[in-house]
Amino acid sequence: MTQPEGTVVAAELEFAPGLAALAELCVTRGVNLQPQQELIVSAPLEAAGLVRPLARCAYARGSKSVTCLYEDPALVREHLAGSAEALDYAPVWLHRGIAEGLRAGAARLRIVGPYPDILSGVPADRIARAHSALADASRAEEAASSAVNWSVAPFVTGSWAKQVFPGEAEEQARRMLWNAVFQGTRVLDADPLQAWDTGIRALNARRDALQSRGFRYLRFFDGRTDLRLELAEGHRWMGGSVVAKNGVEGIRSIPCEEVFTALRGNGTAGRVFFSRPLALGGVLVEDLYAEFEHGSVATLRASRGLETFERLIASDEGARRLGEVGLVPAFSRVASTDVLFRNPLLDRNAASHVAFGQSPSSALQRLEHCAANESAMHIDCMLGHPSMQVDGITPTGNAIPVMREGAFVF
Amino acid sequence: MTQPEGTVVAAELEFAPGLAALAELCVTRGVNLQPQQELIVSAPLEAAGLVRPLARCAYARGSKSVTCLYEDPALVREHLAGSAEALDYAPVWLHRGIAEGLRAGAARLRIVGPYPDILSGVPADRIARAHSALADASRAEEAASSAVNWSVAPFVTGSWAKQVFPGEAEEQARRMLWNAVFQGTRVLDADPLQAWDTGIRALNARRDALQSRGFRYLRFFDGRTDLRLELAEGHRWMGGSVVAKNGVEGIRSIPCEEVFTALRGNGTAGRVFFSRPLALGGVLVEDLYAEFEHGSVATLRASRGLETFERLIASDEGARRLGEVGLVPAFSRVASTDVLFRNPLLDRNAASHVAFGQSPSSALQRLEHCAANESAMHIDCMLGHPSMQVDGITPTGNAIPVMREGAFVF
Repeated sequence: MTQPEGTVVAAELEFAPGLAALAELCVTRGVNLQPQQELIVSAPLEAAGLVRPLARCAYARGSKSVTCLYEDPALVREHLAGSAEALDYAPVWLHRGIAEGLRAGAARLRIVGPYPDILSGVPADRIARAHSALADASRAEEAASSAVNWSVAPFVTGSWAKQVFPGEAEEQARRMLWNAVFQGTRVLDADPLQAWDTGIRALNARRDALQSRGFRYLRFFDGRTDLRLELAEGHRWMGGSVVAKNGVEGIRSIPCEEVFTALRGNGTAGRVFFSRPLALGGVLVEDLYAEFEHGSVATLRASRGLETFERLIASDEGARRLGEVGLVPAFSRVASTDVLFRNPLLDRNAASHVAFGQSPSSALQRLEHCAANESAMHIDCMLGHPSMQVDGITPTGNAIPVMREGAFVF
Repeated sequence: MTQPEGTVVAAELEFAPGLAALAELCVTRGVNLQPQQELIVSAPLEAAGLVRPLARCAYARGSKSVTCLYEDPALVREHLAGSAEALDYAPVWLHRGIAEGLRAGAARLRIVGPYPDILSGVPADRIARAHSALADASRAEEAASSAVNWSVAPFVTGSWAKQVFPGEAEEQARRMLWNAVFQGTRVLDADPLQAWDTGIRALNARRDALQSRGFRYLRFFDGRTDLRLELAEGHRWMGGSVVAKNGVEGIRSIPCEEVFTALRGNGTAGRVFFSRPLALGGVLVEDLYAEFEHGSVATLRASRGLETFERLIASDEGARRLGEVGLVPAFSRVASTDVLFRNPLLDRNAASHVAFGQSPSSALQRLEHCAANESAMHIDCMLGHPSMQVDGITPTGNAIPVMREGAFVF
């Protein structure tokens, strides 16, 4: 870790109001913690300055327990440098324990603070093996999570801030990125919770309107891009709040500016000029252009980073097709920060996007025979911008305006 | 937390050689981690500077996984300030998860960094309730731990350092306490592992010699103190290394200078002038004197802190009796630091001691009908000093010298 931990304290003091407001947002709107409900948090070691107000807020609401599983990036790094046995193992006992806690009624909050520097120099196959072992080990936890109120929110690590603002000293980079995150999450608004309630109501209405129109296709066009996406059979429009199986209504992603759904794997046609650079680990893919034939990428171009992108979408057949579409106003709060966050949790909320690879299972009424897309990959690519138009096309071929000049029509 | 986390970094750099050596000692001699064995560590958040070299050392030995469960004292504090439901609950899923990991073959290392400041101002009954809930929740983990190689080692937190050296600035207090801990654990010796191997061989030989003598009583006397302790039926002398049920030989306590065993609850007679102050939370008990009748304390005096001590030993019947004796040379490495550590992990290794309350189950061949002492309390009180004599008395009444002038005779 390059960043001196001492600066965390300065940031904690400087950003205490924002961190407290973000904590309250996570507890009261994100997971919407219920009285006496237990809360299981995971967070990077650096994020204690957010975890502590989270715990205070949770106990103030009557939580019976807040446990934070702090992740130490230095230990992740040691693990990635370990033996073959280490690479293929992840602590299944821990994830089974979390699953037991969730089944017993706990809510789940993941604080995501990327630390891209720890991966630098680690061979990609080692990362992939460790990732696969972790996915296997956490299967029970994932299954249990799906039944409870859970949420994900960002934390600005020094490593992430330096990646976003490489020209700045770390303290300044951290300040700039926190400011953008606070702005994108509205937590420094006069009444952030009310702003969220208003925003979520609007998103829910938009999501329900899209569902009720019963579109079969979406068409993105702006004179250069002309892309037709076929929605998956039995697709559900998602976004805004979600009522979990335990009956608690929460918001799974902070920030939250998008409505999204699943695409039919073979149903994409046309061409697309992506509107924002795409960050893949340390590599930036710029001016990406794609043409689709029979649902699959036929032509790819980019001014930079093309090889990295090509390697990723060559990993399986589904990675060459699109699995998801997300609609975001071109003037969303995240977009207004004018920052490329290099992280999907934020960048997804800055512009309309499509994802190469796996369709989101939450956006499907059933998983069998739905012809949605399957892949080990899921790569969000932004195509929205202030002069993009989106039509919805009904099964009978009627085209209905959905977005005009980057804004929703309904 | 009063201590600025920034000072941790300075300490980490300043103490890196000591921390690296302590880490190696914990991994190679404490838990004696086996090739491919998983390691489950718990440690305070502040202790990352020790946990990271621990992980490096463990992976270098071929460990397949090192997980650290970092404990955030600020969250403990929030929990202690929580609702009644919170006080009576502890995350049983986490301890069951750890138990599963141990049953699957992991070793266990607890890094103990006391943070006394978080308890200040918290009512004693709240602490007791939370403690009791934690004890219940961690029963499965304790049972699983007893079958594997495990160890406990200290970490100097800012809060602990300030308690030991209240007159010093925190950075200086931390430096002074680390120096004492490094000295007491020999980690800055020319060849610490060899020093440990020599020391442990000597302790093992002493432990086995005490066992083979088959003493029924020990007598401490120095002209003023004259205390006769009856050893529990079926007592085992412990200390030095232990072979766990999984066959791995390790050292359960770092530092390790004592041999100890269990006492018969009703078998104590005589009087004792304790030789070192006793730290009970924030209270110091000084010049403690006790007389025993029918195995139980009949007279107690102290120049300071008497009320606190009396309240603690009034908590149950067994707390007024002695349950354990530990023999430590008056010139042990820990004693040579001349520091009152206010923590039993260190202070137990500075002088011979007896414990009011619970007998150690590890020092009993069987737990039923052994007439050892039972209590919810266990309070170590130091009575050893450079002119203390100890005799062992055989069942036939022969008195055999065990310690003379604070040193072992055999």
